[in-house]
Amino acid sequence: MKNIEVNGTVAERFEAVREEFAQAVDPGAGAQLAVYAHGRLVVDLWSGDDVTGETLTGVYSATKGAATVAVALLVQDGALELDQPVARHWPEFAAAGKERITLRDVLTHRSGVIGVDGGLTADELADDEVIARRLAGQRPYWRPGSAHGYGGFVAFAIVGEVVRRATGRSLQAHFEERVRAPHGLDLHLGLPEALEDRYREVRPGSASPEELAAFWADVPGPHSITGVGYGLNSSPPLDQVAFLNTRRVRALGQASAGGVGNARALAGLYAAAVFGLDGRAPLLEPDTVGEFAMLHSTGRDLVTGDAGQYALGFQAKGLRYPFLSANAFGHNGSAGAESFADPLAGIAFGYTRRRFSFNWSYPEHDRLAAAVHRAVTSMARQASTR
Amino acid sequence: MKNIEVNGTVAERFEAVREEFAQAVDPGAGAQLAVYAHGRLVVDLWSGDDVTGETLTGVYSATKGAATVAVALLVQDGALELDQPVARHWPEFAAAGKERITLRDVLTHRSGVIGVDGGLTADELADDEVIARRLAGQRPYWRPGSAHGYGGFVAFAIVGEVVRRATGRSLQAHFEERVRAPHGLDLHLGLPEALEDRYREVRPGSASPEELAAFWADVPGPHSITGVGYGLNSSPPLDQVAFLNTRRVRALGQASAGGVGNARALAGLYAAAVFGLDGRAPLLEPDTVGEFAMLHSTGRDLVTGDAGQYALGFQAKGLRYPFLSANAFGHNGSAGAESFADPLAGIAFGYTRRRFSFNWSYPEHDRLAAAVHRAVTSMARQASTR
Amino acid sequence: MKNIEVNGTVAERFEAVREEFAQAVDPGAGAQLAVYAHGRLVVDLWSGDDVTGETLTGVYSATKGAATVAVALLVQDGALELDQPVARHWPEFAAAGKERITLRDVLTHRSGVIGVDGGLTADELADDEVIARRLAGQRPYWRPGSAHGYGGFVAFAIVGEVVRRATGRSLQAHFEERVRAPHGLDLHLGLPEALEDRYREVRPGSASPEELAAFWADVPGPHSITGVGYGLNSSPPLDQVAFLNTRRVRALGQASAGGVGNARALAGLYAAAVFGLDGRAPLLEPDTVGEFAMLHSTGRDLVTGDAGQYALGFQAKGLRYPFLSANAFGHNGSAGAESFADPLAGIAFGYTRRRFSFNWSYPEHDRLAAAVHRAVTSMARQASTR
Repeated sequence: MKNIEVNGTVAERFEAVREEFAQAVDPGAGAQLAVYAHGRLVVDLWSGDDVTGETLTGVYSATKGAATVAVALLVQDGALELDQPVARHWPEFAAAGKERITLRDVLTHRSGVIGVDGGLTADELADDEVIARRLAGQRPYWRPGSAHGYGGFVAFAIVGEVVRRATGRSLQAHFEERVRAPHGLDLHLGLPEALEDRYREVRPGSASPEELAAFWADVPGPHSITGVGYGLNSSPPLDQVAFLNTRRVRALGQASAGGVGNARALAGLYAAAVFGLDGRAPLLEPDTVGEFAMLHSTGRDLVTGDAGQYALGFQAKGLRYPFLSANAFGHNGSAGAESFADPLAGIAFGYTRRRFSFNWSYPEHDRLAAAVHRAVTSMARQASTR
Repeated sequence: MKNIEVNGTVAERFEAVREEFAQAVDPGAGAQLAVYAHGRLVVDLWSGDDVTGETLTGVYSATKGAATVAVALLVQDGALELDQPVARHWPEFAAAGKERITLRDVLTHRSGVIGVDGGLTADELADDEVIARRLAGQRPYWRPGSAHGYGGFVAFAIVGEVVRRATGRSLQAHFEERVRAPHGLDLHLGLPEALEDRYREVRPGSASPEELAAFWADVPGPHSITGVGYGLNSSPPLDQVAFLNTRRVRALGQASAGGVGNARALAGLYAAAVFGLDGRAPLLEPDTVGEFAMLHSTGRDLVTGDAGQYALGFQAKGLRYPFLSANAFGHNGSAGAESFADPLAGIAFGYTRRRFSFNWSYPEHDRLAAAVHRAVTSMARQASTR
Repeated sequence: MKNIEVNGTVAERFEAVREEFAQAVDPGAGAQLAVYAHGRLVVDLWSGDDVTGETLTGVYSATKGAATVAVALLVQDGALELDQPVARHWPEFAAAGKERITLRDVLTHRSGVIGVDGGLTADELADDEVIARRLAGQRPYWRPGSAHGYGGFVAFAIVGEVVRRATGRSLQAHFEERVRAPHGLDLHLGLPEALEDRYREVRPGSASPEELAAFWADVPGPHSITGVGYGLNSSPPLDQVAFLNTRRVRALGQASAGGVGNARALAGLYAAAVFGLDGRAPLLEPDTVGEFAMLHSTGRDLVTGDAGQYALGFQAKGLRYPFLSANAFGHNGSAGAESFADPLAGIAFGYTRRRFSFNWSYPEHDRLAAAVHRAVTSMARQASTR
């Protein structure tokens, strides 16, 4: 593959990250990469058609990382308790065997509530309150706690409903007030109309008809657990590309997958949460980071079919990237976003793409994360040997 | 493989199922297939030496589906509670670390009680009450609840003992009275002498000595967990073919694997349970179906070594056949029987064979289930577009 | 591979074990094999440079088997309770989300406490009391009970601290008094200075630079869960070979991996525990054996990446060696030691090596265990047919 043209800057000793970006990123991706090392912005790169460092695009499930930082703050404040049943705040949720499901179960994808029989329309999926109403009567797809499966499009509607009932305000409002606004992060759970001109639409992955046919031949049916989890059981099936290209979705900023942002803001989110940004104290205390970074759900994921790598709300990035620390955590997104913190190594990482891979495979994630980790740890080694 | 000669009838739009049967079924199988679509018999086929649509043969663990329908009715009536310890009704069972094992644990193969050290003779395995007495003192083979493993020949002896103690009558009697007799199903947990002339013996699979040697070389030893689970730890080891060819086994109809029936009756069982048969209301209320169809035990099965696909009492057919709905449920049997309902798709499926596959592999299951699912869903699509 | 020269004796009918030893054991291993059949020493072999039947060497995690026999005795006596939280005896352990971790969780590698952020030095790892102090404040690496991962170098420091707090004496002292001394076993959790002349150093495995590079390329990073579990996150990383070649480690005999012994003593340990040795009653009652031999942790091990095969304190050898009985149990060690009992088959097995395999692969274990099992069961068959 030819190297692509890369814009932006890197700090001293991070030239190798720029080179890896040039080699690893697909020319059509429309990508951004930003990294904080111990709270300092050391990588700020972008590339591709109509993309700059300020460009906003759909980050999909990387939204869950933002939502989880807000949840963690509420837990840290004592406003939410992880091991309380959801139904304590939200009695309607107790239906159909869900009375003992806790907030922790939901945040670790162990609740079994991944969708509804018959499906949710794209319109319904735009709005966490509508999703919550539809989920309230649904029977879990597996015995709560007995297994885990990724609740990709709906998990944080449950979390949000608990937040709303417990605090009187939406998860989105808490995120805005506690996390986004104070740090000026360009990561929006509800994109203001005024910023729409900076939004660039996500694009479908390109694949030959043969590649597409081979990919879909292995995908379980629309009413299977996988189908329900990915919204294939509605008519029409959920179109992930169209999802965030819909203004209403961006405006409501649903907390599972409706976020809009850029790489700087994703990296900034984790820097602000763990290391502190612009002289502010870190949002999360070490004990809060410890609890939310701890592995919770491993073993086979019933929805994705892969080995589960879930911390609490976040994905466990230490399992995803074995060179990182055991307690690295973050969240990727469907169109190719990736974001995480490695508290021990001092890394906050943000990456976005405008263009999906048709089969949700993003090999550049591994290469970029490894290059960043090498650069940061080599910097630390040199500092310690002086 | 050459097409086999197929007898019987299919409804309009189900011709493709007859063709699949002709191509997929082994000429020596002696097979039957019956399907209800939304409560209507749409497929009724048979083939092979000395087999008609009325022929009865051994359905082995498909028996568990019949027994579970009876259990579900007792739970629905409030006569049994799934989360009560077995030992509450049956104090002797509390021995050797089993005091907290619940009926749900047993029905989801999580109890660890899969046999006894030293083995159960074929004679003992014929009789649920004898099995129960032998199991009462046994230590579980794994910490109850920590894992699951298929209790193929004994699980429903535990269930039956709870039923007998809680209700004063056997599981078999409940099945007869509540399920079999009212619907005239040809599925017997205890085959009456008068029907013996319709029973056709099951036959061993055919394999070359090399195939057999290769197969058994990979099978764990007789006293391993797998060996205990399959009755290989008795002297002589359990002969599965001889099991149901023994009149005493058929007469007692033990609830784990001692049932005798045909494809029509297996399909009819699931139709009666979920959709209603011959104008009767479905036996099971939607909430009961929901609970018993819900996934309970996934991950590696300690006995079979495969990925567990267990609902409650039933197998989770949505994992077995990814084109089915998430909550499809049923049970197969050792000689090649298969049976399930897909409540959402409106399918009740029954299949039998007289002849084992020597390695318990029945590829026609996948092909027949897929053909049936295609036909039923295409029928539904055409109906909805009119 | 050429046969190696083998010293020592085997009983009648165990010649095949000697032959297997000659063929299966690497000439450079410096190996010993001892087997008791129904309490009688039937195999006593050794081979290699400067190794005799009396030679002592490092048995690493086979130490855990010795420690667990001592723990089982304390549980049998009522001095310890498996399902009590560790923190009940040791309040400092309750920090950072560890308040509900039980002794059973620790003994089944489900506690999540596998090391500490930043690592333990080799010096710290020598001493269970120091390890315990370092672990007390550590957050678990996964939610306790949600998964398991091998706590190779530290698990029994937690167990030992509970023993010390509950009984006022160390686990090592209990082992010495109750197990080692009465049976004169040459298996030491704390090697007396006077026996140092019989200790032979363990040796590193030999491998080409290419083999080593290929092996380490797949090993997760030093701060990953695997890295923490194997002590790679200290500076310098833990050198397993140097560990037991350090006099202080041998002197303190830490209970996870600090034991010194020989094959006779390993086999003797299991013979003494289960079958009785030299006319003494077995140390463990059948119910104690049953509880400690029962499978507790299966599924993927988060540290080793392999399928977990853990009983309680012991490894579950029935899963490791499928020809053994379901409840066989024991423990291997890093340098190549292996040891187990198969209570049903009447086998107590001990094996040691002086030389590590560079990639911790010891194929001779399978061959020797199988040969021993064949010999013992054939002996039993001949006895029963007379």
